[in-house]
Amino acid sequence: MTKVGVIGVTGYTGQELVGVLSNNPLVELSCITSRTEAGKKFSELYPKFGKKVPLVCENMDIKAISDKCDIVFLSLPHTVSMDIVPQFLENGKKVIDLSADYRLPADVYEKWYDKSHTDAGNIGKAVYGLPELNRDKIREADLIANPGCYPTSVILGLLPVGKIVAGAGVSVIVDAKSGITGAGRKAAIPFSFGEVDENFKSYKANEHQHIPEMESMLSTAVSGDIKVHFTPHLLPVKRGIFSTIYVQGNDLPQKGEIRSVYEKFYKDEPFVRVRALGDMPELGDVVGTNFCDIGIKSARGILIIVSVIDNLLKGAGGQAVQNMNIMLGLDERAGL
Amino acid sequence: MTKVGVIGVTGYTGQELVGVLSNNPLVELSCITSRTEAGKKFSELYPKFGKKVPLVCENMDIKAISDKCDIVFLSLPHTVSMDIVPQFLENGKKVIDLSADYRLPADVYEKWYDKSHTDAGNIGKAVYGLPELNRDKIREADLIANPGCYPTSVILGLLPVGKIVAGAGVSVIVDAKSGITGAGRKAAIPFSFGEVDENFKSYKANEHQHIPEMESMLSTAVSGDIKVHFTPHLLPVKRGIFSTIYVQGNDLPQKGEIRSVYEKFYKDEPFVRVRALGDMPELGDVVGTNFCDIGIKSARGILIIVSVIDNLLKGAGGQAVQNMNIMLGLDERAGL
Amino acid sequence: MTKVGVIGVTGYTGQELVGVLSNNPLVELSCITSRTEAGKKFSELYPKFGKKVPLVCENMDIKAISDKCDIVFLSLPHTVSMDIVPQFLENGKKVIDLSADYRLPADVYEKWYDKSHTDAGNIGKAVYGLPELNRDKIREADLIANPGCYPTSVILGLLPVGKIVAGAGVSVIVDAKSGITGAGRKAAIPFSFGEVDENFKSYKANEHQHIPEMESMLSTAVSGDIKVHFTPHLLPVKRGIFSTIYVQGNDLPQKGEIRSVYEKFYKDEPFVRVRALGDMPELGDVVGTNFCDIGIKSARGILIIVSVIDNLLKGAGGQAVQNMNIMLGLDERAGL
Amino acid sequence: MTKVGVIGVTGYTGQELVGVLSNNPLVELSCITSRTEAGKKFSELYPKFGKKVPLVCENMDIKAISDKCDIVFLSLPHTVSMDIVPQFLENGKKVIDLSADYRLPADVYEKWYDKSHTDAGNIGKAVYGLPELNRDKIREADLIANPGCYPTSVILGLLPVGKIVAGAGVSVIVDAKSGITGAGRKAAIPFSFGEVDENFKSYKANEHQHIPEMESMLSTAVSGDIKVHFTPHLLPVKRGIFSTIYVQGNDLPQKGEIRSVYEKFYKDEPFVRVRALGDMPELGDVVGTNFCDIGIKSARGILIIVSVIDNLLKGAGGQAVQNMNIMLGLDERAGL
Repeated sequence: MTKVGVIGVTGYTGQELVGVLSNNPLVELSCITSRTEAGKKFSELYPKFGKKVPLVCENMDIKAISDKCDIVFLSLPHTVSMDIVPQFLENGKKVIDLSADYRLPADVYEKWYDKSHTDAGNIGKAVYGLPELNRDKIREADLIANPGCYPTSVILGLLPVGKIVAGAGVSVIVDAKSGITGAGRKAAIPFSFGEVDENFKSYKANEHQHIPEMESMLSTAVSGDIKVHFTPHLLPVKRGIFSTIYVQGNDLPQKGEIRSVYEKFYKDEPFVRVRALGDMPELGDVVGTNFCDIGIKSARGILIIVSVIDNLLKGAGGQAVQNMNIMLGLDERAGL
Repeated sequence: MTKVGVIGVTGYTGQELVGVLSNNPLVELSCITSRTEAGKKFSELYPKFGKKVPLVCENMDIKAISDKCDIVFLSLPHTVSMDIVPQFLENGKKVIDLSADYRLPADVYEKWYDKSHTDAGNIGKAVYGLPELNRDKIREADLIANPGCYPTSVILGLLPVGKIVAGAGVSVIVDAKSGITGAGRKAAIPFSFGEVDENFKSYKANEHQHIPEMESMLSTAVSGDIKVHFTPHLLPVKRGIFSTIYVQGNDLPQKGEIRSVYEKFYKDEPFVRVRALGDMPELGDVVGTNFCDIGIKSARGILIIVSVIDNLLKGAGGQAVQNMNIMLGLDERAGL
Repeated sequence: MTKVGVIGVTGYTGQELVGVLSNNPLVELSCITSRTEAGKKFSELYPKFGKKVPLVCENMDIKAISDKCDIVFLSLPHTVSMDIVPQFLENGKKVIDLSADYRLPADVYEKWYDKSHTDAGNIGKAVYGLPELNRDKIREADLIANPGCYPTSVILGLLPVGKIVAGAGVSVIVDAKSGITGAGRKAAIPFSFGEVDENFKSYKANEHQHIPEMESMLSTAVSGDIKVHFTPHLLPVKRGIFSTIYVQGNDLPQKGEIRSVYEKFYKDEPFVRVRALGDMPELGDVVGTNFCDIGIKSARGILIIVSVIDNLLKGAGGQAVQNMNIMLGLDERAGL
Repeated sequence: MTKVGVIGVTGYTGQELVGVLSNNPLVELSCITSRTEAGKKFSELYPKFGKKVPLVCENMDIKAISDKCDIVFLSLPHTVSMDIVPQFLENGKKVIDLSADYRLPADVYEKWYDKSHTDAGNIGKAVYGLPELNRDKIREADLIANPGCYPTSVILGLLPVGKIVAGAGVSVIVDAKSGITGAGRKAAIPFSFGEVDENFKSYKANEHQHIPEMESMLSTAVSGDIKVHFTPHLLPVKRGIFSTIYVQGNDLPQKGEIRSVYEKFYKDEPFVRVRALGDMPELGDVVGTNFCDIGIKSARGILIIVSVIDNLLKGAGGQAVQNMNIMLGLDERAGL
């Protein structure tokens, strides 16, 4: 049975990965690491995993991990992954990196993340791990750049109409709302319950670092030029991303037509569900699942698309495991 | 001292009105009514008003109320107000109506609310009670059509740039989010805690009945033609409306300029606060207050405006009392 | 493969049962019923089950269900189950009843539930489905009375010290807190988000109908007489029950001793986890799982026990499936 | 007009004090201080105070503050107050200290707070600022030890039956639940939204530092010996304390009697509301107010008392202002 490791298990995404991989009967989770908690039992750090996950957190010893694992997930902060990825690749391991380090061309990355890229040579080898876009390439990949949470939601919401959007005179505005785990597990007053509860706010309006990821993946996919105006907000919920997408333009498909464009596009996808025309999904429909639910409505001359995912599953750990299943030739749904 | 009455006190807006009027030292709350709870002590129905509000709910006897009150607030469902307003006007009473019945021309009202209007003759006498727009007219009015919650937030957010928006080639998209009390006090599964908590959803995307109110008030104010694409969402919080407004076009003011347009427009307003350029308000900044806070940002060629209010105060009962204070020549801030 | 049916799938417990049984690879969910939604696709009623559960809700036709199922779960209101259970038993079906109808002697039931019992004859055949108490009997049972949510939490919390508690001079006070789904899926103002959010309240203080269930099961288990003072409260969360149990008396075990009493009692239980002495579980440790987590502390002369479960899993549907697994000789953890 | 100062305005209690004092028309808030934010405008730190509070945070210069203020509120961490209080007293200022530093005899304080007391001489001069217990002494006091939040709730809940409780054979168990602001404004993962939302937990079970405060104040009040077993829990709400109090014993008053004991005890109190027998208050009834609501029920041989307050108002800043009003001979309700 394939042996897998998770590097960095103390954040929300790391915990989710451990949970999902423990439920996957087709692989063996054989190694987890944490810089800060090495030596401690995972289930003592996070009691909800008691009598479920017997593993102990290890130090980040690449040699030791490589000996134990066939494939590794990196759940590390941006700019940390790029120091480690090349070493695992050299050891012949398959790598699924959940950071942003291999999603963008080096120059774009350096501009938006304000860091130099120290492993630019491997960016070209990385496959952007959105199965609905790149399933065949994922099957062959050694290095997966697992998509960001917002881009997953926005790209899946726009892909079927990408060609039209890339046409002249069409503008796209995305108003996205994320649950608090999207910001990570942090000791900071702005993320404390007293500040977030009964509150709601926007941040990084139209200058969030996920913008180039959406724009470049969509533009490449449709061989056109797609510009996205993107403003995220913080919801007082734990999990989930809700993107409301507004498309304005003269050449939009008519009502009857538009829904069937989506339906056809996603009909064989195991993790995308398209609603009836005008029936918009709610956040709660996908929380705790790896699904992306999409609703479409045409009203007063514009197209409104709602695309919802669970940020820790389809937006991070779930999609990473979906990618792993594809890479290993397993049932794509295993453990999800 | 002026005597005031509140017709319909069992909903969230009615309760809020009673609370705010009880705190206003310049008027006397002398009468409250409830069709369903007549004869019961208000503080027994809502114990939070114990040792605060000694009133008993009365029946809706227009003659009796007219004898006791100089001015009445109607906190009733749409289409119910129009049957009662003319009777109070005939009795020489001033009326502040919180329903939608007198906000729109009869034909527009009938189209969006799907009801015949039975008191169309008085619509022309009603003043739209947004003090920042109509303070002088409010001073002289006998009948106030108190604005809707979403329109208050959106109109205040757009008014200073209304002239520009009314110009050619400019489109406006409003993505609004409201706390649950905006939907009223209802026994319905979709509004139960089990369904709303940890959830988020859109509704009536670009076909909400508040759209004509926003468009007509803005268009009239700037003597132009303003079209608003408006999609509301339901936030898992009790109170507050957060409108994110996107303005795209070629003739938008530059960064330095835009904020001072807003600052000048609202500098003498007691209940509008304009933030520094790029500093966006949070919902929590206005909850429990009668303020509208506005943030403006210019990024990647578009203008983003955030406008936040408390739906039960500036969006309903607070604004109604602000209107009353103006009508009576009192300090506009009294009790707020 | 064993075929199972769920009678009554529109409530929170019914939905949870459908979800858990769909994840169980060792049985086949072949029939679901709903009086109000017969003929509708389950995944259209509850879109979160899209591409997961393909079933259509059927009418409650006992003959048809008996033809399709080997075992049926009844997720029905109290007093409704007792009309249906005997028919399934006559048809030779195994029944797991999630209502209170078969948990108590008829006279006690009639007193606390204020209804006549119409199937008293079958009460004696029912096994109280708490595996930690009755695993062997469950294996042989045709009819399971699945425990109430509060009793599950309280009985598991007290069982290891039941003998001591039954001794003279020991009193037990239970202060329990439940998430809102414990009250069911209801259209009622007291359960609306506007009333529950940011609120907390007690109800039925020391007169809740679960009291006789706790007292009789505990008393029987230890062949003694245990009296429980029980006051439940409503938490502004979706799921989970948190019971704080206070035991006062002269013959309580010492600190070192007490924790090992619990540890030994539950060491082979797949779904009970005992914490280190003084380490109290949080509600979040069990939400979404079938575990019961127990913490014990001895301080200032009294014993404090915290027992937490997910009310919809270990407190209802999860425990029901655990019982089914035992009845069918399957891995007790299958699907959980 | 009396001039007041608030020392330490960046925590939740400090902000609440500034808010309440700004609403009090009978005093002038003339000085606020913050060690970390000196020089900054208060309304820029906390925009909700914009166009409301024009003050700038000052440094903690005791001479300068003494020149500007007649009375000062200290909203500082435990052990910090005791260094500052004597200096204000020497300058002839009246002081209301919201920390625990002057509530307990020095030896008890040192044991429970694990710190030496550096101003033990002034403890004897301090009056415990619970108006319902000490109104006359508060009137004459120069130094007020403002009560803790939990003790306020528990003492008010037990005071009317204190004599009985102090009798032989009666035990008291308090299960208290507090909103998150009770823990202060902190950057710490356990208080982050991701950890607190949809969660609930106990802490310091029967060893919280507020225990000696409850026991000593109650015991002194009734000239008896009252022991309280006290376990606090953390609620996923912003504000409010809900104490469920269990009294067991042989000499408890009968049903008819018990409620009238409470009613008589508190009938002239402006901020205590006693409910009808068996009608238990909810947390939401007092949030945002300075009231303490009390419900009493007698069931199955025990007495159950529910006592609720807003932890930041009656449990801290509101009670402090109530004390100030008494000290200055003002209407006790002013600004509250």
